Amino acid sequence: MRIVDIRETSIALKSDLRNAVFDFSEMTTSVVAVITDVIRDGKPVAGFAFNSTGRYACGAQMRARFIPRILKAPPESLLDVAGSNLDPEKILACMMQREKPGGHTERSVAIGTIEVACWDAAAKIAGLPLHALIAKKYNKNKYLSKVPCYVGGGWYAPGKGIPELLAEIREKFDQGYRTMKIKVGGMSIPEDVARVEAALKLIGDSARLAVDANAGFDRERALAYAKALAPYRLRWFEEPTDPLDYALLAEVAAIYEAPIGTGENLFSTQDVKNLITFGGLRADRDIIQTDVPQSYGIAQFGKTLAMMQERGWSPQSVFPHGGNQMTLHIVGGFGLGGCEAYPGVFGMFAGFADDAQVEDGWLKLPDRPGIGFEAQNALYAEMRKLL
Amino acid sequence: MRIVDIRETSIALKSDLRNAVFDFSEMTTSVVAVITDVIRDGKPVAGFAFNSTGRYACGAQMRARFIPRILKAPPESLLDVAGSNLDPEKILACMMQREKPGGHTERSVAIGTIEVACWDAAAKIAGLPLHALIAKKYNKNKYLSKVPCYVGGGWYAPGKGIPELLAEIREKFDQGYRTMKIKVGGMSIPEDVARVEAALKLIGDSARLAVDANAGFDRERALAYAKALAPYRLRWFEEPTDPLDYALLAEVAAIYEAPIGTGENLFSTQDVKNLITFGGLRADRDIIQTDVPQSYGIAQFGKTLAMMQERGWSPQSVFPHGGNQMTLHIVGGFGLGGCEAYPGVFGMFAGFADDAQVEDGWLKLPDRPGIGFEAQNALYAEMRKLL
Repeated sequence: MRIVDIRETSIALKSDLRNAVFDFSEMTTSVVAVITDVIRDGKPVAGFAFNSTGRYACGAQMRARFIPRILKAPPESLLDVAGSNLDPEKILACMMQREKPGGHTERSVAIGTIEVACWDAAAKIAGLPLHALIAKKYNKNKYLSKVPCYVGGGWYAPGKGIPELLAEIREKFDQGYRTMKIKVGGMSIPEDVARVEAALKLIGDSARLAVDANAGFDRERALAYAKALAPYRLRWFEEPTDPLDYALLAEVAAIYEAPIGTGENLFSTQDVKNLITFGGLRADRDIIQTDVPQSYGIAQFGKTLAMMQERGWSPQSVFPHGGNQMTLHIVGGFGLGGCEAYPGVFGMFAGFADDAQVEDGWLKLPDRPGIGFEAQNALYAEMRKLL
Repeated sequence: MRIVDIRETSIALKSDLRNAVFDFSEMTTSVVAVITDVIRDGKPVAGFAFNSTGRYACGAQMRARFIPRILKAPPESLLDVAGSNLDPEKILACMMQREKPGGHTERSVAIGTIEVACWDAAAKIAGLPLHALIAKKYNKNKYLSKVPCYVGGGWYAPGKGIPELLAEIREKFDQGYRTMKIKVGGMSIPEDVARVEAALKLIGDSARLAVDANAGFDRERALAYAKALAPYRLRWFEEPTDPLDYALLAEVAAIYEAPIGTGENLFSTQDVKNLITFGGLRADRDIIQTDVPQSYGIAQFGKTLAMMQERGWSPQSVFPHGGNQMTLHIVGGFGLGGCEAYPGVFGMFAGFADDAQVEDGWLKLPDRPGIGFEAQNALYAEMRKLL
């Protein structure tokens, strides 16, 4: 068996979102198909993935380097020992040939997206949903059958005040969510604190409200927000600092006792190691938010998680970035803390199977083989065009 | 005045080099032309740059995001206060619109290369060599008229033993170089130590020999090399660890008293800040090796340098990565420690003006306006094709 082709297309997110730092008006993502010569149900098995949201499409790197390296490799060098399925770890190593150390993000998104599509193909070949294959390889066959799922929202928009924010929260809770994350940093501190207080009053439980500053604060503002928000003991305070400013993060952690979340803008195991070594974070409460397809994929995430566990961090500390079907399986297969959701926000790239239903804050893992993009009609219509 | 077009082409390095970690057989670089409507000598002024060596060409990012952002901006928003020349800091800010925090390398190489080409155009418009324009903006008009220039070499090659290494060193010293850097890590420690001892015996001065491990060591090997090399008190020991492994670098620094060099694989001011905060480095001796066109360009490097100076580091601590005409001006204009050279190694992308001559380890700064690629025949032949 072998990979016969890998195809990519770039699709615009067409999102008019803005957070405290930037807007998504030009944002794109790479949709990838890894096509094999294995036949299931009369058709060649193909694996799919996309490069999550927030990092631009990266098809050029794929076409110039990673796809040719895979297609030129002896097919058997990319298979498991039995020779009966793809081995994503070997495919990752193949793509990493002739890559200079460091400088991860230039390649980690392209490589990770191809790697996750290989997992989709491998799971379909194995006849397993992706979370079951991940659990088999990395988690002693244990996976979660349902995962906690929180909802992201509370963006800023012209004319959107506290009443509109509360209406949005009510709507999400009516949909079945029980924990919500809202933006901070786009207004003055008193205005943002008023938003948080109003949201808390509605939700009635500080463990069910998180806030996200999207790495937009300088030192003064980060510390001021930490001081202002600390008394509310929220579920977590996300990205209070530049993603790489570990020294400032440690200053924030020293005055902010409730949980802190960060990590969606770190793309290598070594960066996460630096974060937990130098960032003042606390393994008993803080939240790491790796975006797996943007960070070399699932096999590398397995290494990141092992590194974290060696240092006393539980898989339950990880809430991966990206509310999508890939993340859902990754949370389930590795037994992570929970999954995020952005229903309706990033168009076809947000959300899960069309029939997925959040019930009292929980989302069931799907049964179909692979990731199951086939059950997301709008997205799969784009993916299918690559075949 | 305005930028009328920005064009890019990807060129293969065609290098058969290998160091201890990877080979350059697939390596490419982006050559960029920034074309203005300013007429000098009867022709529109164009600025040129290329993305140094070791990071692949990045024209796709330029075409998808950075070039359109510049060309769509109101031309006057990219000019200095007088409106008479380009302002690279404003051009950098324009390119950074709608970019998410962190994840630098995916864009820093593309942005930095365009930015350096804008400096070439700005210096030509000002009628100044680039180092003089840099000195005017960042260094109180002081620049070096000649800079110390060391030579890189000592690569591994099949059949290359100590006699061939010594012949290579003799050849470089005959060309006028007085300090040389050779590779380590591609052999066993005793074999590498024998190479270092033989080179030292020939050169006769430990301050004139540096070694480069190219970030290829794990912890055990990094510490073993540090121990083995420490007694020789070399000019510096380059990249003994993964570029982002600050904790291990601090361990190495604790047992290695002579200077350590690193930083060519860090691409943001924040990463360099982390390096000097957490890496155990010593401002009185260690060497920082930023690659400027790969790290958002000259304006951002000015910020990196200011951040370093606030923390007690001298500009003399910086030996930028990349032995080329761009680096030469940057060393001269900011008053940095020295320049590297790789004569004949990266084809047309290595080296300086065709008539440049290293004399007793020093290289004179060129007088012609801009960077002066026009005096590098083979390279300029490629650049001119973009016009």
